[in-house]
Amino acid sequence: MSACRALEARFREIADIEGALAVLHWDQQVMMPPGGAEVRGEQVATLERIAHERLVDPAVGDWLAAAAGEGQDPWRAANLREMRRHHLHAVAVPPDLVAALARAAARAEQAWRRARAEADFALMEPGLREVLALVREKARAKAEALGLDLYDALLDGFEPGMRTATVDRLFEPLEARLPHLLEQVLERQGDAPPPLPGALPVGEQKALGERLMERLGFDFTRGRLDESLHPFCGGVPDDIRLTARYDHDVASGLMAILHETGHALYNGALPREWRGQPVGEARSTAVHESQSLLIEMQVCRSLPFQHLLAPRLQAAYGDPDHPALAPGALYRRAIRVGRGLIRVDADEVTYPLHVILRYRLERAMIEGRLEVLDLPEAWNEGMAALVGAVPPNDAQGCLQDIHWPGGAFGYFPCYTLGALMAAQLAAAIRRAIPDLDEQIAAGDFAPLRHWLREQIHERGCLLETGDLLLEATGEELSATPFLDHLCARYLNS
Amino acid sequence: MSACRALEARFREIADIEGALAVLHWDQQVMMPPGGAEVRGEQVATLERIAHERLVDPAVGDWLAAAAGEGQDPWRAANLREMRRHHLHAVAVPPDLVAALARAAARAEQAWRRARAEADFALMEPGLREVLALVREKARAKAEALGLDLYDALLDGFEPGMRTATVDRLFEPLEARLPHLLEQVLERQGDAPPPLPGALPVGEQKALGERLMERLGFDFTRGRLDESLHPFCGGVPDDIRLTARYDHDVASGLMAILHETGHALYNGALPREWRGQPVGEARSTAVHESQSLLIEMQVCRSLPFQHLLAPRLQAAYGDPDHPALAPGALYRRAIRVGRGLIRVDADEVTYPLHVILRYRLERAMIEGRLEVLDLPEAWNEGMAALVGAVPPNDAQGCLQDIHWPGGAFGYFPCYTLGALMAAQLAAAIRRAIPDLDEQIAAGDFAPLRHWLREQIHERGCLLETGDLLLEATGEELSATPFLDHLCARYLNS
Repeated sequence: MSACRALEARFREIADIEGALAVLHWDQQVMMPPGGAEVRGEQVATLERIAHERLVDPAVGDWLAAAAGEGQDPWRAANLREMRRHHLHAVAVPPDLVAALARAAARAEQAWRRARAEADFALMEPGLREVLALVREKARAKAEALGLDLYDALLDGFEPGMRTATVDRLFEPLEARLPHLLEQVLERQGDAPPPLPGALPVGEQKALGERLMERLGFDFTRGRLDESLHPFCGGVPDDIRLTARYDHDVASGLMAILHETGHALYNGALPREWRGQPVGEARSTAVHESQSLLIEMQVCRSLPFQHLLAPRLQAAYGDPDHPALAPGALYRRAIRVGRGLIRVDADEVTYPLHVILRYRLERAMIEGRLEVLDLPEAWNEGMAALVGAVPPNDAQGCLQDIHWPGGAFGYFPCYTLGALMAAQLAAAIRRAIPDLDEQIAAGDFAPLRHWLREQIHERGCLLETGDLLLEATGEELSATPFLDHLCARYLNS
Repeated sequence: MSACRALEARFREIADIEGALAVLHWDQQVMMPPGGAEVRGEQVATLERIAHERLVDPAVGDWLAAAAGEGQDPWRAANLREMRRHHLHAVAVPPDLVAALARAAARAEQAWRRARAEADFALMEPGLREVLALVREKARAKAEALGLDLYDALLDGFEPGMRTATVDRLFEPLEARLPHLLEQVLERQGDAPPPLPGALPVGEQKALGERLMERLGFDFTRGRLDESLHPFCGGVPDDIRLTARYDHDVASGLMAILHETGHALYNGALPREWRGQPVGEARSTAVHESQSLLIEMQVCRSLPFQHLLAPRLQAAYGDPDHPALAPGALYRRAIRVGRGLIRVDADEVTYPLHVILRYRLERAMIEGRLEVLDLPEAWNEGMAALVGAVPPNDAQGCLQDIHWPGGAFGYFPCYTLGALMAAQLAAAIRRAIPDLDEQIAAGDFAPLRHWLREQIHERGCLLETGDLLLEATGEELSATPFLDHLCARYLNS
């Protein structure tokens, strides 16, 4: 067996284990009774350990060295590059540290739940300190192995090739422009739209969501829609598990479903002939987020989409003349902006400011410039400066996200990198499909889907992120299309 | 680390993988969209292969040899005995044969589905021949390793310690008595009970099932009830996944739920301190079936239980006076006997005859006395002699069960061994709890559950099956309590 074939077999095995873990994760959020938590935790830990062992196996290193000599077409070469990256990241961190971090993160997440419920940072502080110490150790190990700075070594795990220098360059104009833009939008947007006519029954919300998902191209023979506390898109490409949460505001619930549908369309169209191989996976966290934000923010929160949505909502409510269900009112609702305290509820103008705050703070913690104890104060100062709002307590402040107690440092920038990519892709799509708005209003998403498949989805990890964006849009990633989009949507309408 | 500790860690790991597989299996039957079948098949095959590799690892053999010298309390000693048994069975079969059999069985199951749908045995015949050849090879390998006859070597995989000599001794009085008993019952049982007043909505059937499950002691914080094509009890002890099928006959649907609840009560009460260890598992296939049949046949198809059920059904139908919902009419429905052709629909008088037929035929195939080609004829002859009914086609004959194309030879006897055990346990319970019938009618199952926990559930695999039965009932396993039960229920009422 050639080294390449041995590697492909090994990575297929790892993908099978990770696919099983994806189903277990979905089940845990959607189906599992509470009593199952302990044994499920053990099952997941065992499968994760086995997948990790398979990846750090010295044989993988030997095969990678041997495979460098084998002749390669571009897909195989990219597959080897991605294998090497996964292997490098995994072997960089000693197994004891991986295990210690997993245990500390599990403890800190527990403490975080209590701390957030009681709005008491002190409850989480020792746990987060322990996690941070171990994440810094992990960052040092990865930095040494990859020849990177501490924070870059973590960032590279979520967004391969991305560096703080680039993030700084991209975030700088956002930080310079968004606080003022936010003020302008708040002055101009006028009164809140009229309230929706009460809540729709869950069954009708779900049916509406399913019909919109189908319209966008979701294939229900290869996926499901269920409920969970936090909406997510899980599963594997031929068995996609999307979840929703149905609450009072049917419009915002539908937008969450459409956001996850953007993720689902990406996963469902990954290159079939490379299933189970690293090159067949989605490119990165930020590129994945670009697909959900493209569908949600660029497509579904547009005025044309509200023309598609309005008659469906009017029919569901049985009230064709309700003022809140007119396309214009729905649009005002979809693009309403506010100085909110909570990232996951933030509008697209404010969201990057939340991310910039977290990016600054987590870099400072990783680089030893900020102690965990000083986090609440630094958070509140940052919120005042960036968003112009100070949380009344830490539950609505630095306790709102699970990322840090969970050990995920270096993840936050990807949200906003994804938003920038989504705007840049949307601009390119509008050049390629001049009547995109008419198609959206008519519910014809086939040309859009076709473009996304060809340019992004079906390329998997063939290209690195920068080249993928360059080939798809003709430009290096920049903040300009995003800022142009915000100005066009929020100031020129 | 002592050999014992190393073994415990290894078997805990295997249990984690098997627990994950149990969730994946449930998901496949209950949740998975059709497009997920292929990738799920690969995930399951990979996890099964890894669990098998962990079990046949030569280190396990070394640890087992070393552990024989370590001082043991009874639970640890029993744990080692069960580990040794699992290891012996697994190493007996070469990995290539395991893989070949899995592939052949997957093909034959596919062919079986088509063959059954078209009632065309020829469609399955080549696939079953291939499976049989490989199962016979597996039987030879196990027979040599375990020092057993061919069929016994397979039977031992489902029912440790059980031998054909014992099965023959237990089945002989059944074969001698049941055909005549069946005739007597058919003469005496009179007209069919009045038909139920239409179908209940699925939601009400489910609610009724859940209330009865709770009454029997099912803990919904550690389990769920869902729907699948064939009802089953899956999952793991703290996360039990029970399924039901709701069709026209609400009474028979409820009996299927109660049958699975018997399995669930066993799994849920396995010894907590030995979770993840072989000694903490259910004793065997037949003992498991004894628990479902005890709850279904001995407890829930009794007249006292119909007194508990009747007012609930009357309330669900909103018809307290309907003649079909009176306890007596429900009881006649619950114990209706017939010369049915289909095993899974069979009553408790006829069921053992179906099993005896399959036991004879599969032994003959394993021992080379019956060719696959001659199976339909042998089946129909056997049905005529034992049940007194001949199937009009093979779909209702030798194509009705998945066991053989799936490679499960040696499993069928366990159903009837379980029925014998259930009757013997029920007789012992009636001696220990003289007012059992009053308790059943009042819906008080706590004393029954307490007895089953102490005598069966909480003992896991501490004792071998024979000793477990002997300690619980004071007698060796025999057919007498079962035949006594049938005579009391069907001839003396």
